[in-house]
Amino acid sequence: MTTAAPLSTESRFLDDLILHGHFLPTGEPGLYGRGMVFEDVRARFDALVTRIHAADRPETPRFPPLIPRRTLEQAGYLNSFPHLCGVVFSFEGGEPAALKLAERAKNGGDWTSLLSATGVALAPAACYPSYPAIAARGPLPPEGVTLDLGGCYVFRHEPSADPARLQMFHQRELVRIGAPDQVAAWRETWMNRARKIFAMAGLEAALAPASDQFFGRTGKLLANSQREQGLKFEALVSIASEQPTAAASFNLHHEHFGSAFGIRRHDGSVAHSSCVGFGLERITLALFRAHGMDPGKWPQSVRRNLWPE
Amino acid sequence: MTTAAPLSTESRFLDDLILHGHFLPTGEPGLYGRGMVFEDVRARFDALVTRIHAADRPETPRFPPLIPRRTLEQAGYLNSFPHLCGVVFSFEGGEPAALKLAERAKNGGDWTSLLSATGVALAPAACYPSYPAIAARGPLPPEGVTLDLGGCYVFRHEPSADPARLQMFHQRELVRIGAPDQVAAWRETWMNRARKIFAMAGLEAALAPASDQFFGRTGKLLANSQREQGLKFEALVSIASEQPTAAASFNLHHEHFGSAFGIRRHDGSVAHSSCVGFGLERITLALFRAHGMDPGKWPQSVRRNLWPE
Repeated sequence: MTTAAPLSTESRFLDDLILHGHFLPTGEPGLYGRGMVFEDVRARFDALVTRIHAADRPETPRFPPLIPRRTLEQAGYLNSFPHLCGVVFSFEGGEPAALKLAERAKNGGDWTSLLSATGVALAPAACYPSYPAIAARGPLPPEGVTLDLGGCYVFRHEPSADPARLQMFHQRELVRIGAPDQVAAWRETWMNRARKIFAMAGLEAALAPASDQFFGRTGKLLANSQREQGLKFEALVSIASEQPTAAASFNLHHEHFGSAFGIRRHDGSVAHSSCVGFGLERITLALFRAHGMDPGKWPQSVRRNLWPE
Repeated sequence: MTTAAPLSTESRFLDDLILHGHFLPTGEPGLYGRGMVFEDVRARFDALVTRIHAADRPETPRFPPLIPRRTLEQAGYLNSFPHLCGVVFSFEGGEPAALKLAERAKNGGDWTSLLSATGVALAPAACYPSYPAIAARGPLPPEGVTLDLGGCYVFRHEPSADPARLQMFHQRELVRIGAPDQVAAWRETWMNRARKIFAMAGLEAALAPASDQFFGRTGKLLANSQREQGLKFEALVSIASEQPTAAASFNLHHEHFGSAFGIRRHDGSVAHSSCVGFGLERITLALFRAHGMDPGKWPQSVRRNLWPE
């Protein structure tokens, strides 16, 4: 007689999400369809961010979830996060190779060895395509630039059984490009706004210094340095795992992107940048975790803030 | 002295889109950011489809633009369209390989040979992930199922200088799964609705039998058969090229997806399916082409239908 291993909290929460139709499994870890109620909540939180941001009158360009492979190279992404990248491969062969590919695909063989790299990759963060686009306009105005990129799909290659760790998820990303003090003050403003937004949603969020998931041993040093310099803060909420999960981040890039993509200020100096990202699926999951699986039964104050009309 | 080659109509229209801030070039053919005005028009057309569809009370699940590679295999996509597929490759190596990768990326070398295939691929059409999700629920109710999948990003590997041929674009896809007669009647209804929708947008759209871009010589036979059986109709509009461009399609799949994914009707028979897809970027481009680059100056009737409130 065998005893089943106790289910992890991640796995129990995932089962509950599936039972309520919020997550639709695809068979691939970290990749789910979402039900109507889940999407309504996600859209409502997204709209709350829009309302808070409206006063700033940001520019709202939109970028697809694919970027030129060259953008990853220029940004130095492959030094720091090779393990998370996604490059699109396709088929460029002729008829004999196509027959071989179809046959392998049919018989469960490996057909991916017949593919070759295209010029495009998945965006690892919504802000990446915005830097070359802003650089192409020429020097910034004295007041700099403020962007709201909307809820964009971004990719991280980290298949996981934790429903809060998705391979493809919506990042609502806001970007500020300009002088060092403009950019730092803007991040401060958004850390305060985020505290307010999470409180309106009835979520307990702790803001804390954090670091990115840099690759390897050198990565540990980069992470320590990032944390010591206070370049990254995260808003941590409870979702599925024992440890709190990052649901938003507040990042100073200094001259990193300005220098990589040649963004100049009006006086010719290299622009600084900062971005703020809300992880929309994680926040939606945190709402289900905090208030229950049925939004109709959520606290009235939370409902008023998310469904104001 | 050299004479410049005359610009193609595609290239002149693309220049005009860039000049007006509607398209933001990324340096990669068929991959553009989009400006605020373009996105407003796209969202307005999308909302018009939503208003027309509301009476049917469709289910509105949402799926990410990545699907399991297995879904492409099961659907038989690789027999017909290997040249259009996109599979995600990532890096699974250790520190020595990561150093090599970073160095090659920095020096303009080929770092993609260090990547390996993941389990995920780009969705070639918005409806693909919906079939296994519906199959997983068990037999259909007698009335079948109607889905509205929203405006989803889909991928086609066909880099092109034509601004109407994008590698990544929004497909607004509607799906009907059920009995053969339910599905055929639904497609007919949507062909009529589409005529109305295009007329409301002030676009001249001709509906005509069409075929998919099947690969190779066998593909030509498949395309002829598809056209002869009337399985695919397209709504053709004028955009950039001399030839009209497909901006919507109306497809009967017979038992193809029902059989591939095991979707059963209430009586145990294999379900039929049909999908209707609006190419949102193409329709937006057709609107700019027909009415000019500034929506503020579009005909009042068109403005009233797209900006009703």
